[in-house]
Amino acid sequence: MEIKEELYNQIIEGMKSEDRELLDEELENIYPVDIAEIFDIFEDHEIIKFYSMVDHEYMAKVFEELDDEIQIRLVELLDLKNIIKLFDFMANDDIADILGILRIDDKKKLLNLMKKGEYKDLETLLGYAEDSAGGIMTTEYIALKASLTTEEAINKIKKIGPKTEIIESIFVIDNFKKLIGIVDIRDILIAENEIKLEDIMEQNIISVTPEVDQEEVSLIVSKYDLEIIPVVSKKNKILGIITIDDIIDVIVEENTEDMLKMGGVSHEETVNSSFFMSVKRRLPWLFINLGTAFLAAFTVSLFEDVIMQVVALAAAMPIVAGMGGNSGTQTLSIVIRGIALGEVDIKEDLKYILKEIGLGIFNGAVLGLVTGAIIFYKYGNIYLSLIIFAAMIGNLVIAGMFGFSLPLILKKLGIDPALASAIFLTTATDVFGFFIFLGLAKIFLALLI
Amino acid sequence: MEIKEELYNQIIEGMKSEDRELLDEELENIYPVDIAEIFDIFEDHEIIKFYSMVDHEYMAKVFEELDDEIQIRLVELLDLKNIIKLFDFMANDDIADILGILRIDDKKKLLNLMKKGEYKDLETLLGYAEDSAGGIMTTEYIALKASLTTEEAINKIKKIGPKTEIIESIFVIDNFKKLIGIVDIRDILIAENEIKLEDIMEQNIISVTPEVDQEEVSLIVSKYDLEIIPVVSKKNKILGIITIDDIIDVIVEENTEDMLKMGGVSHEETVNSSFFMSVKRRLPWLFINLGTAFLAAFTVSLFEDVIMQVVALAAAMPIVAGMGGNSGTQTLSIVIRGIALGEVDIKEDLKYILKEIGLGIFNGAVLGLVTGAIIFYKYGNIYLSLIIFAAMIGNLVIAGMFGFSLPLILKKLGIDPALASAIFLTTATDVFGFFIFLGLAKIFLALLI
Repeated sequence: MEIKEELYNQIIEGMKSEDRELLDEELENIYPVDIAEIFDIFEDHEIIKFYSMVDHEYMAKVFEELDDEIQIRLVELLDLKNIIKLFDFMANDDIADILGILRIDDKKKLLNLMKKGEYKDLETLLGYAEDSAGGIMTTEYIALKASLTTEEAINKIKKIGPKTEIIESIFVIDNFKKLIGIVDIRDILIAENEIKLEDIMEQNIISVTPEVDQEEVSLIVSKYDLEIIPVVSKKNKILGIITIDDIIDVIVEENTEDMLKMGGVSHEETVNSSFFMSVKRRLPWLFINLGTAFLAAFTVSLFEDVIMQVVALAAAMPIVAGMGGNSGTQTLSIVIRGIALGEVDIKEDLKYILKEIGLGIFNGAVLGLVTGAIIFYKYGNIYLSLIIFAAMIGNLVIAGMFGFSLPLILKKLGIDPALASAIFLTTATDVFGFFIFLGLAKIFLALLI
Repeated sequence: MEIKEELYNQIIEGMKSEDRELLDEELENIYPVDIAEIFDIFEDHEIIKFYSMVDHEYMAKVFEELDDEIQIRLVELLDLKNIIKLFDFMANDDIADILGILRIDDKKKLLNLMKKGEYKDLETLLGYAEDSAGGIMTTEYIALKASLTTEEAINKIKKIGPKTEIIESIFVIDNFKKLIGIVDIRDILIAENEIKLEDIMEQNIISVTPEVDQEEVSLIVSKYDLEIIPVVSKKNKILGIITIDDIIDVIVEENTEDMLKMGGVSHEETVNSSFFMSVKRRLPWLFINLGTAFLAAFTVSLFEDVIMQVVALAAAMPIVAGMGGNSGTQTLSIVIRGIALGEVDIKEDLKYILKEIGLGIFNGAVLGLVTGAIIFYKYGNIYLSLIIFAAMIGNLVIAGMFGFSLPLILKKLGIDPALASAIFLTTATDVFGFFIFLGLAKIFLALLI
């Protein structure tokens, strides 16, 4: 926090001087992303003043890095014509991201203010789903014909280079604009001048079509250690590229989403969210939990007569239910992570399920033995110990089966496994845990009294 | 699975032909990482045969991508001199990774077989902790003097280029080898021939020292959208670079670790782990859970007399304890993720804790109201409803406080918050949940009977 406030004070001071050059000089040593972070403590007039004093290129970089709400605020504070000036310094995937969050009329007005070529590119980008390959790609890349020599290629690159996001990888196309290869700029530099691109290009290209989910794209990029991945049409025409910094954003975003969903929170909440935002994000989920808690309570209430006669059951029953939940969560975490990393192979389901059942029996027996011994020490009834031993094994087997299959079933149904698995799992382990334990107690009641 | 087996059969078929060229041709269209995946179904003699038939460069790429155990197996199967031949085609950070997992005598023998320069570089790399910036950096980069012209620079790059991992970013050093700037190869290409590097270099460099934790490095790289980050000594001499593909591996690894730890599993387990590996990874954690389950059971047993008189308490008590656990897990997930993303700011602790207490009161009151109403409908006792209402608020406040502070306290104590938070949290919400609810019931027992 201190650093943020210090930076804020420094910038406010710099603006007071009314000296553009002085401010520019200061900003030379400050990254736009750090400036973006203090925008949420800027007053409206401070934002306008900042915009008026810094050069457009720097401002554009800050603009890209702002949180969604502040981007909207900036668009409202500045004239749309000024926004267009900033867009001139931005890659069109970043422009598309911003347009995507604006009100429809602002978006339309901005699109109308653009040059025809840009307008067309952006309209195409805006047509793809936000979390698809098309939604995160940029159309600024270099594609050269295979018949060019490396010398000709370098001259072209020198001309086009400044306008594109990436020049490390050059895409090679045939006369029909189909993607047929990739050349590293390194290889062009090293090669003899008269060699043709088709002679040094890598032909074995990994590409995706625009509708592929961004999570799948990130898995491919990370598996094959790519620095860039081309997006192509079904007919193999190049449509755009996805760069690795955008892939990192995808990985971080998807991981955050998975982890928070498993914890029962919408991914849109951070520690900084407002009180009522937090209520809105958490309460609905707690209500679903309450429903399952009542299911468990209802199961217990079926056995009130048994508990009344052997009250020790009330103390011991949460152990069985709880250990089932813990054990099932272990399985669940491994499977959900395996799905996210593309490691789980549904074909091998049966083998894995048998393993989980085996683990349930083994771990259940070990834990049940210890629990039974402690219970015997406290209550002196060997039958109570035997019942908790059996119930522990039963519930851990159920935990393993549910923990393994729930995420896979939910995934097949098109439901996010990270979101809903935990709740179904603990419902199962609570209800079955209480039912098996209290049910056995009811059957062998005579031995317990 | 099918794809893996198909590939396996294809390669086995290719090796039977004894035709090296044919096999090479086939491999041209197959990525080394895909070949690496079938190595675990290869028999020993098949591995040896594969090595003898493919060219060293391809084999080196496969070697890099193998799992640790199979890398060790390969080193044992092949003569150490052959391993050295493969090392010739590998970056030295990858070599260091492999040496790091070998038996000490194999490691020493391999180091002794190396050229002096390589040996020195590797010894330095091996000196850094595996999960530090030094442990993931490579020493293969291009550093040029600031006084060079772009033309001279390009000629140097053409010479050194093929031997280094990255040539997109050129590091600029002064006469004392201190890092003073970075130039994009793009800017060198575009610039006039006689311009000096010092005139076009970016001076505002983000770097790390070798002992910085890899997770922190990944946060910096992802915040500033870097494609490469230099590792420098305290005196600002360049020691190495970390490339973005290694950063992606770090992010994926750290996320997997966090998610599995939160689920109570060691990060070393995957769906493919063997039965006894799984037992070894999970059982110790389940025993810790068992300890906390007994704590909860002990709390309940303190109130056996109360439960005996009002058996409805036994059915209702898991609701209070369970909802506390759910609510606390929500807070916990947000804070742990916030810590991992570097977003949580300890200075603001108090503000956040007050918010969590507020959320506990608000959500607790809403959930308590609904729960109380349902309990009244079932048991017809308004005092029981009031007690559950009060206990729900109390336990959700405790859940919020623990959920927020536990990860921060553990972090300050140097304990991984993802690992231990959940267990402490549910212990707290179970024990306090039962205690508050049953305690209140004991105090107002006369009203409940």
